[in-house]
Amino acid sequence: MHTTVGIIGGGPAGLLLARLLDRAGIDSVVLEHRDRAYVEERQRAGILEQGTVDALRACGAGERMDREGLVHHGIELRFDRRSHRIDFPSLTGGRSVMVYAQTEVVKDLIALRLAEGGGPLLFGAHAVAVEGAETGSPVIRFTHEGRERTLSCDYVVGCDGFHGIAREALPETVRRVFERVYPYSWLGILADVPPSCEELIYAHSPRGFALHSMRTPTVSRLYLQVPNGTDPADWSDERIWDELDARFAVDGDWKLERGPITQKSVTPMRSWVTEPMRHGRLFLAGDAAHIVPPTGAKGLNLAVSDVVVLARALEHWRATGSEELLDAYSDTCLRRVWRAEHFSYVMTTSLHTDPDQSPFDGRLQLSQLHRIADSTAAATELAENYTGLPIG
Amino acid sequence: MHTTVGIIGGGPAGLLLARLLDRAGIDSVVLEHRDRAYVEERQRAGILEQGTVDALRACGAGERMDREGLVHHGIELRFDRRSHRIDFPSLTGGRSVMVYAQTEVVKDLIALRLAEGGGPLLFGAHAVAVEGAETGSPVIRFTHEGRERTLSCDYVVGCDGFHGIAREALPETVRRVFERVYPYSWLGILADVPPSCEELIYAHSPRGFALHSMRTPTVSRLYLQVPNGTDPADWSDERIWDELDARFAVDGDWKLERGPITQKSVTPMRSWVTEPMRHGRLFLAGDAAHIVPPTGAKGLNLAVSDVVVLARALEHWRATGSEELLDAYSDTCLRRVWRAEHFSYVMTTSLHTDPDQSPFDGRLQLSQLHRIADSTAAATELAENYTGLPIG
Repeated sequence: MHTTVGIIGGGPAGLLLARLLDRAGIDSVVLEHRDRAYVEERQRAGILEQGTVDALRACGAGERMDREGLVHHGIELRFDRRSHRIDFPSLTGGRSVMVYAQTEVVKDLIALRLAEGGGPLLFGAHAVAVEGAETGSPVIRFTHEGRERTLSCDYVVGCDGFHGIAREALPETVRRVFERVYPYSWLGILADVPPSCEELIYAHSPRGFALHSMRTPTVSRLYLQVPNGTDPADWSDERIWDELDARFAVDGDWKLERGPITQKSVTPMRSWVTEPMRHGRLFLAGDAAHIVPPTGAKGLNLAVSDVVVLARALEHWRATGSEELLDAYSDTCLRRVWRAEHFSYVMTTSLHTDPDQSPFDGRLQLSQLHRIADSTAAATELAENYTGLPIG
Repeated sequence: MHTTVGIIGGGPAGLLLARLLDRAGIDSVVLEHRDRAYVEERQRAGILEQGTVDALRACGAGERMDREGLVHHGIELRFDRRSHRIDFPSLTGGRSVMVYAQTEVVKDLIALRLAEGGGPLLFGAHAVAVEGAETGSPVIRFTHEGRERTLSCDYVVGCDGFHGIAREALPETVRRVFERVYPYSWLGILADVPPSCEELIYAHSPRGFALHSMRTPTVSRLYLQVPNGTDPADWSDERIWDELDARFAVDGDWKLERGPITQKSVTPMRSWVTEPMRHGRLFLAGDAAHIVPPTGAKGLNLAVSDVVVLARALEHWRATGSEELLDAYSDTCLRRVWRAEHFSYVMTTSLHTDPDQSPFDGRLQLSQLHRIADSTAAATELAENYTGLPIG
C-alpha cells in the first residue's frame, strides 16, 4: 500500500490533518490503534482557541461546533475570596474561545473522513515502526486484523501522542527532550448538573487549585488539585463536592450546585517537549512532540496549530515542489509550542499550591494574581495567550 | 531630647522622610550611625522611577538631578545575539526613568537638611534599641560622641536597612519573614570610560547575565553574574572586560569600550520582606522592611514610595488628629512592595542562568524574552513595572 502522507494516530491532530489534506486533494492514510467507539469516548480537553475554531470552520468541520458549542468571552479568576473577570474581546480585539469537547471534535472529523471523498481511516491498526525516515520513501510497519502490513509514503506524520512510536524513528543523537513534572495532579469529574457559572472559574485557594468548567448546559466538568498518586476511589462524591465548595468559596452570593458524578479520573501534570519536530520525511505533531499541563487549555490547540502549519507546508510542496515550508516546520511550530509551554507553566504555577512552596512563593502568587486583576497590561497578556496567538 | 518623628538611618529613606517632614512643618531627628563622608560615598542603585523623580522634585530636591541626571526613555534587552528595545513612553503613556546615582540623591538631601530650616541630622549616632513602641511615647536609645542618649518621640521610623535594629522592636510573635536567596551574585564595576550605549542593556547569555549601566556621560557601571562567594580579587580587569564582551556579543556592529576600572565589588542577590511594616508607634521603611534583587532597580524606589506614603499619613495625622492613614501604612506599602518583589523576581530569574536550571527552564526563559520582544502586552507589562507603579 502506498500513500502520499501516512498519518499515525487518529486523535484530533491526525484526523484534522487528514481532513485538511482531503480538502487539498493530497491523499493520506490514517492508522489508529484503538477502535472507533473508544476514540469517540475519550474525555480530554474542551476549550478551543479562536484560531482552532477558525481552522475547524475553514475545513468544513465547524457545523455542529457552531450549533452546540458555547462561545465564552472571558474567564473568572478567583482568589482571596474575590472574583475577577478577564474579558477577552475587549482585551484582544474581539477574540474569544469555544467550549466544545475534544471528543466531539473527534466525532465530527471521523464522520467527515468516513463520508464520501475521505481517504482511508483504519481503526485497530497498530503502528509498530517507522523506517527509512531519512530516505525518499519512508515506510510505516503496522498490524491490522491480525496481519502484518506495510504502508509506504512520501511523508510520515506521527500524531500518536505521548506514548506513540513515531518519534522512536528519530535517532537518539538528534532528539532532545525537555521536561518538567509537577508535584500535583488533577482529579477531574463529570457531573450531571448545570454549571454553577456561565464562564470558567480558575480558583486559587490555600487548599489548592480548583477549576469549574462545563461540557454542555447540563453537564459540568470540575477539577481539583490533588497530590500525585491520588486514587479517585478515595474521594467520595460528598468529599469532592465539599472540597470544591471550600476552594470556590467567595465573599458574596454564589452557590456551587451539586449533582450525580458520572466520571472521576486523576491526571498527572507534565510539561514536555521533544526537539526537533521533523527528521527527514518524518514529522511529529501534537502530543507526540509536546505535552503541557492542562491549566492553560493549550494541548488540543497546539495539536491543531501544528497540523495547520504542516498542511500548508504540504500543499505548498504539492503545488510548487518546494520543501521550503516543510524545512521550516519544526522551527515554526516550536516557537508557538514554547510560548504555550511558558504560558501553561505560568498559569499552573501561579494557581496551584506547591506542597514545597515557601511563604515567599505564596506571596508572589498572590501579587501576580492581583496584578492580573488590576492591570490592563497583565490581563491582556493573559487574554492574548489564552485565546491563542496567531498560527504559523 | 524629644521630637515628633525619630528617624533611625540617614540613607535615602530616612533623609527623604526628614525632608518631607521639614516641608510639612513636622519636626524630626535623624540618627545616622556612619559619618557624613561615608554616607555620601556609598555606591548603590542609580535608576529613579518616574514617581521617585516626581517626589524629589515636589520636595525641592530635584534641582541637581534635573541638571545632571540622564533621562532614559527605554532599555535594551539582549539575548540570542540580538537587541530588542523597550520604549517606555509609548508603552506607558509618557513615563520614563532617570539615571542619577543614589549617592547623589543622598548628597542633595543631606545638603537640604543641613541648610537653614532643616531639623537635626546626627552623624555617628548609633541607635541601640527602640523601646515602648506599643506605648504613646516610644524612645530611641542611642550613643553619640561617646555618650548614651535617649530620644523620645511621638513616632519612630526605622530606615536603618537590612542590618538595622529598629525591627527588633517588633515582637517575634508579630513579625513574619519571607525570603529567597539566589544562587548567584553580581560583580559590579565602575569604569572611567564613556558608556558604550545610550540606554541600559540587560543581556541574557548562556554564560550568564550582564548589565551595562552608567553613572555619568564619562563613567560606566557594569555588572556580571558570578557564582556566590566570588572574590573580586580573582577577576583581573582584563578578565572582566573579556567576559563582558562575550556576554554582550551581538550580531551586527557594536563594540564595548574598555577603560580603567576604579571600583569592583560583589553583591549577593536576595528577596526578603518582613511583615507588618508597622507596630504600634514604630514604622519600618525601605531596606529595613524589604530587599529586592537589583535586577529591576526597585530597591531605592521602594524606599522612596514607603516614605512618601508615610509622610502623607503623618501630615494627615498632624492636620486632623486621625491615625487612619497611619493604620493603613503597612497594607498600603506592602501591596506595592510585593508587586516590586514579583517584578524583581521575574526580571532576575528570566535573565540569569541558574546553575541548577534544567534545559526546560532555559527554553522557558528564551520564550519569555522573545514574547517581551514581540508583544506589546508583554512589553507594556515590563515597562509599567520598570518605570514604576503609582505610589499609595
